[in-house]
Amino acid sequence: MELYIEKIVITPIAITDPPLLNAAGLHASYALRTVVEIITNTGIAGVSEIPGNEEVNKALEEIAPLLRGWDPFQLNGLQRLIHNTFGADKPDARGDAPWDQRKVVHIFSALEVACLDVIGKYTDRPVVDLLGGKMRDEVPFAAYLFYKYEGAGGRLGFDMDPSAKGWAAARQQAAIDPQGVVDQAKAMCREFGFQSIKLKGGAFPPNEEVNAMLALHEEFGGMPLRHDPNANWTMGSALSYGTKMQDVLEYWEDPVRGQKNMAELRRQMKVPFATNMCTTSFDDFPESVRLHSEDIILSDHHFWGGLKASMELSRLCMTFDRALSMHSNSHLGISLAAMVHLGAAIPNFSYALDTHYPWQSEEIIKGGRLAFENGAVAVPEGPGLGVELDHAALQSLHNNYLECGLTERNDEIEMQKVNPDWSFKPVRW
Amino acid sequence: MELYIEKIVITPIAITDPPLLNAAGLHASYALRTVVEIITNTGIAGVSEIPGNEEVNKALEEIAPLLRGWDPFQLNGLQRLIHNTFGADKPDARGDAPWDQRKVVHIFSALEVACLDVIGKYTDRPVVDLLGGKMRDEVPFAAYLFYKYEGAGGRLGFDMDPSAKGWAAARQQAAIDPQGVVDQAKAMCREFGFQSIKLKGGAFPPNEEVNAMLALHEEFGGMPLRHDPNANWTMGSALSYGTKMQDVLEYWEDPVRGQKNMAELRRQMKVPFATNMCTTSFDDFPESVRLHSEDIILSDHHFWGGLKASMELSRLCMTFDRALSMHSNSHLGISLAAMVHLGAAIPNFSYALDTHYPWQSEEIIKGGRLAFENGAVAVPEGPGLGVELDHAALQSLHNNYLECGLTERNDEIEMQKVNPDWSFKPVRW
Repeated sequence: MELYIEKIVITPIAITDPPLLNAAGLHASYALRTVVEIITNTGIAGVSEIPGNEEVNKALEEIAPLLRGWDPFQLNGLQRLIHNTFGADKPDARGDAPWDQRKVVHIFSALEVACLDVIGKYTDRPVVDLLGGKMRDEVPFAAYLFYKYEGAGGRLGFDMDPSAKGWAAARQQAAIDPQGVVDQAKAMCREFGFQSIKLKGGAFPPNEEVNAMLALHEEFGGMPLRHDPNANWTMGSALSYGTKMQDVLEYWEDPVRGQKNMAELRRQMKVPFATNMCTTSFDDFPESVRLHSEDIILSDHHFWGGLKASMELSRLCMTFDRALSMHSNSHLGISLAAMVHLGAAIPNFSYALDTHYPWQSEEIIKGGRLAFENGAVAVPEGPGLGVELDHAALQSLHNNYLECGLTERNDEIEMQKVNPDWSFKPVRW
Repeated sequence: MELYIEKIVITPIAITDPPLLNAAGLHASYALRTVVEIITNTGIAGVSEIPGNEEVNKALEEIAPLLRGWDPFQLNGLQRLIHNTFGADKPDARGDAPWDQRKVVHIFSALEVACLDVIGKYTDRPVVDLLGGKMRDEVPFAAYLFYKYEGAGGRLGFDMDPSAKGWAAARQQAAIDPQGVVDQAKAMCREFGFQSIKLKGGAFPPNEEVNAMLALHEEFGGMPLRHDPNANWTMGSALSYGTKMQDVLEYWEDPVRGQKNMAELRRQMKVPFATNMCTTSFDDFPESVRLHSEDIILSDHHFWGGLKASMELSRLCMTFDRALSMHSNSHLGISLAAMVHLGAAIPNFSYALDTHYPWQSEEIIKGGRLAFENGAVAVPEGPGLGVELDHAALQSLHNNYLECGLTERNDEIEMQKVNPDWSFKPVRW
């Protein structure tokens, strides 16, 4: 039967986000996401979720009419159409912030994942089978710790909700020192069963962050630990403070800025290096190979051009002896489901994936939030991504978007609300 | 609906092949292929075709029972199963001959392509759509010229068939000098409309082959020309004789042996280098990048691990600024169809593909031999590969296999029947 796209619905949403600290400042009380629904002539609805950004939303609105009548299987052609429409992202488009600021890759990811969801539903197969099939039934994630201020985010602003219990209560607590970080880790691991732990760093002076990592090691013994200062340490700090903690690290993510620095530092240390900041596209790969800037690529299908491109990246990594794991941003269940399908398909899985999901509390998929068991998420049952949009919940989060007035992520502005003198520095410590 | 493999049928066949010369000797009067049929519980039959070899056939027979009940979508798992069963091909398993002598990659290709044919039929989609969809409706091939002795091959041995007309008659003619090569090219291009021309070399002294290339240039003007001595020229010959013809070449394929020599020679010349002998696996890729041994990878899904792996190779090539084209061996329409689906899907198509198909006269697919128009083959219509096995024709070529007594390709032995003193030399000229 003929299958084509009849309509594309683009819905920006704002999701409650706590006051998490990172190298670029402070998370706003809402994080933005964009949800894409592709509706076919046969009534299939495919969905996807990407980081929210007004410029990307506009571009999606611009390309949507061109895709009326498009066969969702034509993903190679879709990529060409997008490139013909918008060109390619400029080499510096990723930006200096911890998150990826490119446009074209995000658009392709949004459309590709929704098309794969359509294809899965059309063929009655889970997306993982469109990526070559399952190598594992469940996908392990890591506890993603953040330095944070007190509070919950969202409609509450950063107020506390005194009625919250368990992890929902723990999630509101401040964590600005080793003990706070350890307490957060204990609560998060108790709730989700994570078997490895990452601390988002770059927020406090290196000696404090090293002490937090050593405290985690003290508390969690052999648990794999990771630290990510988002490339804002100097070479000097990284060498001297990194040396103090490398024995307790499973990997070190983006200690310094740029492939060249990463490579130079890596040669002087004995901990594997990971990145989602210095090698973030296929274009970056040759120089990464030449310099050997990292051991582990933290891919993200949202900015590596979708799920099929991520399978190709998996092959690149195997070919050039890089491990592959995954980066995340604040996200909901559609992105999580896509990450799980991909994580279940890649042959070279050796590091639990990142997810911000525990920091979110809302959901826009029917049946509510996806569950973690022993830190892992089972590949969703059912065709496509295995999730279905809850339109009432979507509308409610879209209302949040309209009300909150945010149009893009800007952690610097949020931080300046707390500390007016603060400004973003690509290399701070 | 549940879908699983119920039966795998492995049928070795022998196809009529003329006395073509190459660096390893002489084609036998039959070329061996193996046809794999995968029959599912739902009655779908998926097919594939690979180079025939007794050892590979035995391995296929060994793994077939393990795949009873296997879901054909589980291709990542299939690869793991094959590796767990047979290990990986050893680094030197490719061998020195022009054709690839590895076992495991061929097994995987045979099973993967047949599974993709099943999946296409199950989902009512052409295989190209399982590879991301069509970038083009037809796939250009090159005229593949061979030095040859007189005769047709097959049941005729190398006798002539006086009733043959047109290309069937021209195909029987000897071509052992520039005029013979030009005549062959004219007849082949007249019949199939090819827009580029390759001469399989390595058979005669370099000055004679250079003269043949110059004669082709003289006759065909701006037509893209390629020459492939299958790595049996010395560095000295390649440099001095290559210099005489590089201005008329679109690319030069494997003039010398090994990545190191290729890289060294390439730096001294101004013609793009292609290979299907020095960079023939993902394992070879890092060293190819380091040395820059070639500009164009001549992939072959039969030994790069199937069609999805070839799409991954396409990404590797784009990432590292290599072009991608395709190698071939004597083959029938199932392999040609698979090549066309792949050729239609790859985004980075810039060189017409190789095919031996004009040298064959038989076919095992319903409707007979696939057609070339202006040197290109249209992507077959219909689900899967778009071809269906003609079991009577298959049986007849299987009978040839049983009668001919060949169990593997050995061009040296065939050449020794003509010239008893001849022996294979990896580097001859």
